[in-house]
Amino acid sequence: MKARPGPSTRIRIRELSGSTARDRRDDLATEEPLEIRLTAADGTRRTVAITMRTPGHDFELAAGFLRGEGLVGAGDIAAIAYCTDVDLPPEARYNTVTVRLHGPVPDLPALDRHFLTSSACGVCGSAGLEALRDRCKPVPRGLLELSPELLYTLPDALRAAQGVFGKTGGLHAAGLFTAAGRLVALREDVGRHNAVDKLVGWAALSERLPLSEHVLMVSGRTSYEIMQKALAAGLPVVCAVSAPSSLAVELARDFGLTLVGFLRGERCNVYAGAERISA
Amino acid sequence: MKARPGPSTRIRIRELSGSTARDRRDDLATEEPLEIRLTAADGTRRTVAITMRTPGHDFELAAGFLRGEGLVGAGDIAAIAYCTDVDLPPEARYNTVTVRLHGPVPDLPALDRHFLTSSACGVCGSAGLEALRDRCKPVPRGLLELSPELLYTLPDALRAAQGVFGKTGGLHAAGLFTAAGRLVALREDVGRHNAVDKLVGWAALSERLPLSEHVLMVSGRTSYEIMQKALAAGLPVVCAVSAPSSLAVELARDFGLTLVGFLRGERCNVYAGAERISA
Repeated sequence: MKARPGPSTRIRIRELSGSTARDRRDDLATEEPLEIRLTAADGTRRTVAITMRTPGHDFELAAGFLRGEGLVGAGDIAAIAYCTDVDLPPEARYNTVTVRLHGPVPDLPALDRHFLTSSACGVCGSAGLEALRDRCKPVPRGLLELSPELLYTLPDALRAAQGVFGKTGGLHAAGLFTAAGRLVALREDVGRHNAVDKLVGWAALSERLPLSEHVLMVSGRTSYEIMQKALAAGLPVVCAVSAPSSLAVELARDFGLTLVGFLRGERCNVYAGAERISA
Repeated sequence: MKARPGPSTRIRIRELSGSTARDRRDDLATEEPLEIRLTAADGTRRTVAITMRTPGHDFELAAGFLRGEGLVGAGDIAAIAYCTDVDLPPEARYNTVTVRLHGPVPDLPALDRHFLTSSACGVCGSAGLEALRDRCKPVPRGLLELSPELLYTLPDALRAAQGVFGKTGGLHAAGLFTAAGRLVALREDVGRHNAVDKLVGWAALSERLPLSEHVLMVSGRTSYEIMQKALAAGLPVVCAVSAPSSLAVELARDFGLTLVGFLRGERCNVYAGAERISA
């Protein structure tokens, strides 16, 4: 990984069209964590947010987040800089922004209620993947083999089963399929990570975990968070209608998952784990 | 608001097509907060997450979230129920799920680092809107007047200016426009809230806040969080290519913002603040 990631990341992928495959280069939107720290005039320091973002305009992101949340007002910010702490590995320095204030660190009322133990938090690139490795094993290579023709049937099957989307146009869907392409369960939500949580929760409460013989299909994009949830559920294959982020692909490759994107009509891109697709 | 919200919410909207307008009913994806609480065998209680979700399958959402984050394993959950605490108003009871564990509440390592002071947190329907009212004033009614024809130009202008999206297909865009339809600034990100934060941060750092004579245009959907950020920046008009959530519309109506969705070609839906559109 580069010391300072750019807004897009170039990788090699496998493009499937009908029954033919070719390898080519592709550009992905870069996804990296950004930690926003406040430093008060008296030296007090506090991390106020960690968000998964595309690198670039990071000082604006920090300032806009703080203003939007009402944590700082006009004229409160003295300086914004990337963190140069020696305890940070070089690649993490551009993932940590320190906002120096003229005054004290603002009260963060009811802070104990104001957190999400989201996988988007506390993830710092390779350190985050290391932490994930402590609790999640890579997916075994032998699980599942799928034909391109079977993949091509999934989006229509997902769409046909979507109840609320047809009415509102505003919901993400996550569907669980067998290796034969049969839809087992479908959940919808305004939050795409919630749709996956509902599906995994259904499997957990009906004692079907791990889902090592199933395929997850999502209606939107794939991010680090979606892939982390799939990995924790033991899912070997994740398919999506739209693009993956760079970190989604990195996680899939590190943990042996198959990741398919832009699955539309008779074509798709395979970003990781192409050995499970029998093209 | 109903005591127990469903997955979709029916409201009246104004549909614009070319230069004609008609009022009709429309269904929106419901967005409400869900607070996930853990209760240990010894009675210890702890809130571990608050997420904005579409009501339905809430127990699965809680179980899937906890499994996905590695906070519980197979067999750890004794029961899941909606919270019936008498200190909760009736409409909040279906927005709070208590997961009772056979054992102790798990360690949440480095919890002080694991939070997002997100606007998605601590929001409990009307209580959340009340808290927002403490720090954000409604947008004055007189600001801006826009023709449908001007609105119809915004998506193409946004798309034309998008740099990275063309390459990756994986980024959300947020654009700031003048009332004459001129693009002032554009930011992109894998996270749609980050794209808006970057735009607001740009305005904050160049001392352009409040943006009371500008229009925000986003490439995707509008949620509570996007509207809250627009409100905090003083933006009177928010336009989107896709659908709003129920809570996005509720916030827009409560605070006097104009909210436009499905802005594509020569048509759009006006969900709130139609008096600013001179149809």
